[in-house]
Amino acid sequence: MASKEPAHNCKVFLAGTIARGLLAEVAEGLSKLDTKPRLVGFLANDDPAARMYADWSAKTCIENGFDFDLRIVGKEEIEERILAANTDSTVHGIIVYYPIFPRPSGQDRYIQQIVALEKDVEGLSHRYVFNMYQNIRFLDPPTNTLKSILPCTPLAVVKVLEYLQIYNSILPYGNRLFGKTITVINRSEVVGRPLAALLANDGAKVFSVDLDGVQIFTRGQGIKKSHHEVQVQDESFTIRDCLPVSDVVISGVPGDKYKVDLSLVRDGAVCVNFSSEKNFDSPAVKEKASIYIPAIGKVTIAVLLRNLLRLVQNQSAGKKIVGGPEALNGSVNN
Amino acid sequence: MASKEPAHNCKVFLAGTIARGLLAEVAEGLSKLDTKPRLVGFLANDDPAARMYADWSAKTCIENGFDFDLRIVGKEEIEERILAANTDSTVHGIIVYYPIFPRPSGQDRYIQQIVALEKDVEGLSHRYVFNMYQNIRFLDPPTNTLKSILPCTPLAVVKVLEYLQIYNSILPYGNRLFGKTITVINRSEVVGRPLAALLANDGAKVFSVDLDGVQIFTRGQGIKKSHHEVQVQDESFTIRDCLPVSDVVISGVPGDKYKVDLSLVRDGAVCVNFSSEKNFDSPAVKEKASIYIPAIGKVTIAVLLRNLLRLVQNQSAGKKIVGGPEALNGSVNN
Repeated sequence: MASKEPAHNCKVFLAGTIARGLLAEVAEGLSKLDTKPRLVGFLANDDPAARMYADWSAKTCIENGFDFDLRIVGKEEIEERILAANTDSTVHGIIVYYPIFPRPSGQDRYIQQIVALEKDVEGLSHRYVFNMYQNIRFLDPPTNTLKSILPCTPLAVVKVLEYLQIYNSILPYGNRLFGKTITVINRSEVVGRPLAALLANDGAKVFSVDLDGVQIFTRGQGIKKSHHEVQVQDESFTIRDCLPVSDVVISGVPGDKYKVDLSLVRDGAVCVNFSSEKNFDSPAVKEKASIYIPAIGKVTIAVLLRNLLRLVQNQSAGKKIVGGPEALNGSVNN
Repeated sequence: MASKEPAHNCKVFLAGTIARGLLAEVAEGLSKLDTKPRLVGFLANDDPAARMYADWSAKTCIENGFDFDLRIVGKEEIEERILAANTDSTVHGIIVYYPIFPRPSGQDRYIQQIVALEKDVEGLSHRYVFNMYQNIRFLDPPTNTLKSILPCTPLAVVKVLEYLQIYNSILPYGNRLFGKTITVINRSEVVGRPLAALLANDGAKVFSVDLDGVQIFTRGQGIKKSHHEVQVQDESFTIRDCLPVSDVVISGVPGDKYKVDLSLVRDGAVCVNFSSEKNFDSPAVKEKASIYIPAIGKVTIAVLLRNLLRLVQNQSAGKKIVGGPEALNGSVNN
């Protein structure tokens, strides 16, 4: 019998395909609301990438039945304008396009905490971040009617892995990555570290890789703990130790210089790129991976709308969120 | 916050639960037939295990709407009685309970080839076995209307892994185990070797472990080959090298002495026992595995009925199977 030799057996999924189900879910939720939700975006910089993201989120909002206001403001008035939007009942969600202030100042971090908890569509409020790391999914335990908001890009990667059935739905909710080993390359506070935490909280063993070394995020042997713990590895443990044993490799290194060393990747691994650049050489990656996701941007936008819908649902649940935005600093109670 | 520490996070599935979907599928196929299919079992030994299997298959046949005849015959008449059943149009499937003759003689192997191809419910005919190893799924390529029959116990394990979503249905049919590493402990001709081949043919990397060492079954890097190839490992490569990197560990070692060394098993692995004895110490296995399958017998019986249904469907497709039973010895043409 002649041997059949296809070029490769890698399946490539585009973000638009994966986003479709999420947008349908959003449309259904939207159809049950009395009001058309309004997202307000604040742009206080000249960064063309931020402007592009703002235009893109505007377009997706409008296309999917949401209102969107872009408010271009000066750095000196950003705080005041956000506070006004916090108390404006016609505004349901707020997104701020960073960076605004020079990085070393930490002032952007301060602005993030200005946005009202119940309008924080990006999940950057300390309360949401705390809940994410602690694997607490609701704002109002034990009633559990108000969902805690997760940051858009890390949640988009989770949604991608759910779509790809890396999350095994036969396992209990919350443990569906048990048995999976995942490498996440990038440990920024914005994406890489929250993503590693989310995946470990769902049961995975996660190698979090960055320039300063490797950290292992897990819920311990048998995923017995309620949330992840981190083990910092010494410098002898490198990405060379991570890639060959990883079922999934997720990379988000900015710039066009970095490429994942495909010779170390396990045959049949799932490769996901969340960098704006291509961290996986293509077509070479298709010779190694069983599934390759070249980009996730459209999923991130769909998740943004899903978060906005969650906020409106939380708001119309008519309950006062315990604590409220003014009580966020240091008063988290669980 | 108090740390929640559940006893274990392992999910145990019973074979009866997994068999249910298969039996429903069989019932639907059965409802479309004009005739009630009849399975004939030949028992020519005094082995209590064989008798128990015969009684069990009888019970399951009757319960699920099939006819079952148990024919208890002498060793000297087995061949003639099978040949008579081959040409009896009221008989749709034939199962023979082995062993009949002393093992070294090879006479049982001869009897297996006596059963007509179109009535061989266990898939032991050379043509079926050849197709299985060669990853050929139909008897009549390229028309592909007559399905080749797979052996019951190996196919039962495949069905278990499909149920558990180890087969990723987002990948193309035939490649759904790409990226999975599986250890199969037992390399008998009846179960272990065909199972390793089936899993590798579906894209897995399989460590086939037996007393004489380890063999690796794969379709090559990038699963480019149309069917598996085998690499025999030297004695320095042992089960100690296999278990820590395996997503799934499947064990079928007879007798109550053998236990899989759980200290070597990867945290969150899927553990499947197909031995009549417990190859995984319980409850210890539940401290390590994400999923544990203690037994597969009921799935095997469901697969037997599914094979019988396939035979009837093939027969009623009204086509003469290329070659036919009399042409089986050495004349396989592909």
